[in-house]
Amino acid sequence: MIVILKPNPNQAQLDSLIAWLEEKQIQIHKSVGTSRTILGLVGDTAAIDANLINALDIVEDVKRVQEPYKHANREFHPEDTVVSVGGVQIGGGSFAMIAGPCTVESEAQIIAIARQVKETGADILRGGAFKPRTSPYAYQGLGAEGIALLKAARQETGLPIAAEITETAQLPLFADVDLIQIGARNMQNFALLKALGTQEKPVMLLRGRDASYEEWLMSAEYIMSSGNPNVILCEGGIRTFEPSARNLLDLTAIPILRRLTHLPIIADPSHAVSRAWLVPQIAPAAVAAGADGLSLEVHHDPEHAVMDGPQSVNPETFAAIAKRARALHAYLADA
Amino acid sequence: MIVILKPNPNQAQLDSLIAWLEEKQIQIHKSVGTSRTILGLVGDTAAIDANLINALDIVEDVKRVQEPYKHANREFHPEDTVVSVGGVQIGGGSFAMIAGPCTVESEAQIIAIARQVKETGADILRGGAFKPRTSPYAYQGLGAEGIALLKAARQETGLPIAAEITETAQLPLFADVDLIQIGARNMQNFALLKALGTQEKPVMLLRGRDASYEEWLMSAEYIMSSGNPNVILCEGGIRTFEPSARNLLDLTAIPILRRLTHLPIIADPSHAVSRAWLVPQIAPAAVAAGADGLSLEVHHDPEHAVMDGPQSVNPETFAAIAKRARALHAYLADA
Amino acid sequence: MIVILKPNPNQAQLDSLIAWLEEKQIQIHKSVGTSRTILGLVGDTAAIDANLINALDIVEDVKRVQEPYKHANREFHPEDTVVSVGGVQIGGGSFAMIAGPCTVESEAQIIAIARQVKETGADILRGGAFKPRTSPYAYQGLGAEGIALLKAARQETGLPIAAEITETAQLPLFADVDLIQIGARNMQNFALLKALGTQEKPVMLLRGRDASYEEWLMSAEYIMSSGNPNVILCEGGIRTFEPSARNLLDLTAIPILRRLTHLPIIADPSHAVSRAWLVPQIAPAAVAAGADGLSLEVHHDPEHAVMDGPQSVNPETFAAIAKRARALHAYLADA
Amino acid sequence: MIVILKPNPNQAQLDSLIAWLEEKQIQIHKSVGTSRTILGLVGDTAAIDANLINALDIVEDVKRVQEPYKHANREFHPEDTVVSVGGVQIGGGSFAMIAGPCTVESEAQIIAIARQVKETGADILRGGAFKPRTSPYAYQGLGAEGIALLKAARQETGLPIAAEITETAQLPLFADVDLIQIGARNMQNFALLKALGTQEKPVMLLRGRDASYEEWLMSAEYIMSSGNPNVILCEGGIRTFEPSARNLLDLTAIPILRRLTHLPIIADPSHAVSRAWLVPQIAPAAVAAGADGLSLEVHHDPEHAVMDGPQSVNPETFAAIAKRARALHAYLADA
Repeated sequence: MIVILKPNPNQAQLDSLIAWLEEKQIQIHKSVGTSRTILGLVGDTAAIDANLINALDIVEDVKRVQEPYKHANREFHPEDTVVSVGGVQIGGGSFAMIAGPCTVESEAQIIAIARQVKETGADILRGGAFKPRTSPYAYQGLGAEGIALLKAARQETGLPIAAEITETAQLPLFADVDLIQIGARNMQNFALLKALGTQEKPVMLLRGRDASYEEWLMSAEYIMSSGNPNVILCEGGIRTFEPSARNLLDLTAIPILRRLTHLPIIADPSHAVSRAWLVPQIAPAAVAAGADGLSLEVHHDPEHAVMDGPQSVNPETFAAIAKRARALHAYLADA
Repeated sequence: MIVILKPNPNQAQLDSLIAWLEEKQIQIHKSVGTSRTILGLVGDTAAIDANLINALDIVEDVKRVQEPYKHANREFHPEDTVVSVGGVQIGGGSFAMIAGPCTVESEAQIIAIARQVKETGADILRGGAFKPRTSPYAYQGLGAEGIALLKAARQETGLPIAAEITETAQLPLFADVDLIQIGARNMQNFALLKALGTQEKPVMLLRGRDASYEEWLMSAEYIMSSGNPNVILCEGGIRTFEPSARNLLDLTAIPILRRLTHLPIIADPSHAVSRAWLVPQIAPAAVAAGADGLSLEVHHDPEHAVMDGPQSVNPETFAAIAKRARALHAYLADA
Repeated sequence: MIVILKPNPNQAQLDSLIAWLEEKQIQIHKSVGTSRTILGLVGDTAAIDANLINALDIVEDVKRVQEPYKHANREFHPEDTVVSVGGVQIGGGSFAMIAGPCTVESEAQIIAIARQVKETGADILRGGAFKPRTSPYAYQGLGAEGIALLKAARQETGLPIAAEITETAQLPLFADVDLIQIGARNMQNFALLKALGTQEKPVMLLRGRDASYEEWLMSAEYIMSSGNPNVILCEGGIRTFEPSARNLLDLTAIPILRRLTHLPIIADPSHAVSRAWLVPQIAPAAVAAGADGLSLEVHHDPEHAVMDGPQSVNPETFAAIAKRARALHAYLADA
Repeated sequence: MIVILKPNPNQAQLDSLIAWLEEKQIQIHKSVGTSRTILGLVGDTAAIDANLINALDIVEDVKRVQEPYKHANREFHPEDTVVSVGGVQIGGGSFAMIAGPCTVESEAQIIAIARQVKETGADILRGGAFKPRTSPYAYQGLGAEGIALLKAARQETGLPIAAEITETAQLPLFADVDLIQIGARNMQNFALLKALGTQEKPVMLLRGRDASYEEWLMSAEYIMSSGNPNVILCEGGIRTFEPSARNLLDLTAIPILRRLTHLPIIADPSHAVSRAWLVPQIAPAAVAAGADGLSLEVHHDPEHAVMDGPQSVNPETFAAIAKRARALHAYLADA
């Protein structure tokens, strides 16, 4: 970390800063220039809050020369991390398709969808049991029963299962879920992140719609520094001023994150674009940007379901997206 | 709710939509115009997800003609709600000052600050015990001990106390805290919102930095519909592209929310602007925009504290801000 | 256009609204529902400002049922527009590469680059002569001489040329430029848009970094309604809160715009991402999202040029991007 | 300017950077630290593009230690600038009210409004003659005739007049306009900024809705460095994700800009909030944030004008806002 001091800093404040840093075992290298003095800080600077130093009256600016995340940092772990989700490898050049309904509704529904997506190219079954909804009056999901139905679908099809957790107290219910998802709204629910760090199941961490890349990686760091290295990042869009799509899928995030971290990166176009017709149009772009896989909402029977159809693709469209995505991934790997 | 259909909608899909709505006890009034047919929905439409209907192929657009929040809605509750926080009235024309350190550090610290802010104009003492931090390596607060120290400061000064909760499991520790704060990152932690709705202590709900007004009110609605009417809104800034301040304090939110809801609205400039020198500059603007009070970070001894001083104002500055804010509030009430 | 009135609207204001609309030759169809009255407006509603009606006290909301752009609207022009740029066809399934330096520096430079990009896959040569710069102290380009040098490079290589115009008075200098670019900052410079509508050269309209899709198309409409149908849209990124890339390339814009308009859509990753290493990573995603071509900054001699290299790819990288992009475009067309 | 190099930078690239800087008369002071080498640049660094250096492979980061604007910088001009607009002083502790219709419609209209606002507290009359409109089909203003009518209203009332310019070619028409406004969409129309720098009339520069503080000041710098020191900044709101107000008025901008620059700062709530009922609610907050004045849309006869009323306040409301604003400004100056 480099601290650029203002000209003629107050000596008492500077001494106070230096004493505080030394107490934290930070070595300080001072460079006195013509107009500015610069402090180079060496040691475990990840625990130092750059914003706080930056706000001091005597400080012009603070620059980290090393990212504040350690476990997630590619610099210290050059090889891609490969996370095994119930036997399915995610990351390291492979390509995974995660598919299933927004909400688990019934045994018949989830088993029907599980069979269809398995046949047409899914590696992992997803399904919502605890649904975070903006309105308290909206349907909140089947809860524990939804998890049980996902397990039944796994039993039937052999597909590993993924579901979103919304609170630490639900953790026992997820003991046998293959991939635990943290939704965008909980990306900085630090208590939940820490709890997921103390268990071993892989965690898929959706980006908060207002989160910078660094904040996203720091949330992964919460899980990893608590003991669980099996983190998958999932880009699901950010909030912008454009009214026509719910969130904007940030595909530039994929190559930038690829350079910063060794963790796998999945894209979730359904979450971002919110309209089924757009999903097959944007999915290939996510593959071409380098995603390690896609997570898609698929509905089994759109003809009789008013309320899930519009956001979800049907199994035929899913089959086409999956086939095209895998072929494109292979094509680009060879090209 | 008004549903505008596309020209020549598919009849099977339209029948399916109507059947689904009727199942939810919604009455449907159809108006056939020259180019478009419109469905007027009457009944308990708060439980209907407008986005889902909007995404249907046969639907051009959906308009709510009534806000989806009921308990928070001023239309059904024209008088201002006044929330009593340990005897301090918030809302309804009164003006409250909430002040205290970002973090409770020690008994000596919190009692010293409590005395100073009480003398110079605070109505309620705030202090962080459980600190949500972007980095897992940053200091996370004293936890339960911090709450105990706040109670000691209350004992000493008589000031009601406010602290942030970050997880449902902490709730027993907050049983005797006068005002429970939900931070910006947890504004859509629905499990926590529901839990706070099942107890009686007042809740101050900070706006998420990416939250629309409606989303913010829907989060208040979670608490209220779970049984707790004592909700205070707190504007603490939103995220924008401008790099020089952490968040942008949205003061237009105050008159707009005032019209939409009967709940009190507090402004927290410290959270938004992140630099002490700006706080006294922007605080009067929050008062003039109609805030029911201010929440401010105050540090007791900036000369010996490198790390809290820069974001917090010192007690003298707090005294000046508080005096000026109260005078301005009274002046504007008379003007 | 549909106008939803508030319950019990003021009759005088309603009469005034109706009279005003009738004066503009708009027919009004009234539907009286149980809780709301709705006016359906039929006629040339493109000239009606929806925001103004929306702001009336008696109006609940206004919905356009038809887009306010006519010339750019795919509904009235279902086939893709193909724009010919000096004989190069853009749109309609073809794929175009536009390449060249950020700034024209000298005859030797522009001719060297023109030759290199022609050999390695460019269809059109771009080069900046009038440079819009945030700072008045930054280099502003060679101006008229830059345009002359571009023509010399065209003479030498046969490549059509593209350059950015920044002011109406420059128009005579662009009379023989094959493609006139409007930069992001001038997307709503309506005087310039109208001027470009009165001449025949194709115009490439970069999206403003704060522009919604509709605003972008309305700017295209300015050019088209002034008489010039040869408009190409160019996505170059929008402004967000993320600090690590200058702008965020919005690839979802491509399929959404494809549905709304018949105009060709080019992506400019160089403008958005601002670092050379990212350009080859994100370019394939733009192709997979359906772009009709790419516009790239290429520098000829990065070893001796400190200042252009970092934002521009070198000719070897350009060759690789172009080859990969064309192959991917062909692959996706066949897949 | 401080350049932080990456560890072990490529020597050839470093030599190239140093040679390039020396060519620009920049002195270089090198500090070699344990992990990083830092270059301190001394000289006229305003002409150096920090982004370009930042993008070099060998560079970790670049920090300006001095703002890139000189004429607008308070550091070199500690006293407030006071701009005289037809005899009305703006800045330096005074408070100015600018008022008038969105659009000049007729002689009767503009003279009626001019009389009313003069009586009720306006110092300067504003009125739109050239209207920048998102749609080419929307009314574009009276043009030259509108300017002539403004002059007639000045003749009648003695109020100085303000109007927006949208293109350099209009400049002769503005030779006798007291205050020339640049709208938000033209904040980075550099050709127009330079043209306004070569004449002497005061210029009011509205902030672009996507402009950072630094970009805004750099646009002021274009005018000032071209020879015209009479620049007034006008905050009119930025674009955010919140759908309920057109733009978000950024009141924190006022104290931050006050510290960075000596130029006067006006707030334009009408432009930002777009609904008349909000204007009197937010105007006092702008005064309390320290604005040197307000610019407001006022309509003369809302009973017979469907289309201007909703965005504009009527003369009675204007009178109340103006009275309250002046009293509040005086109160705060004394407090």
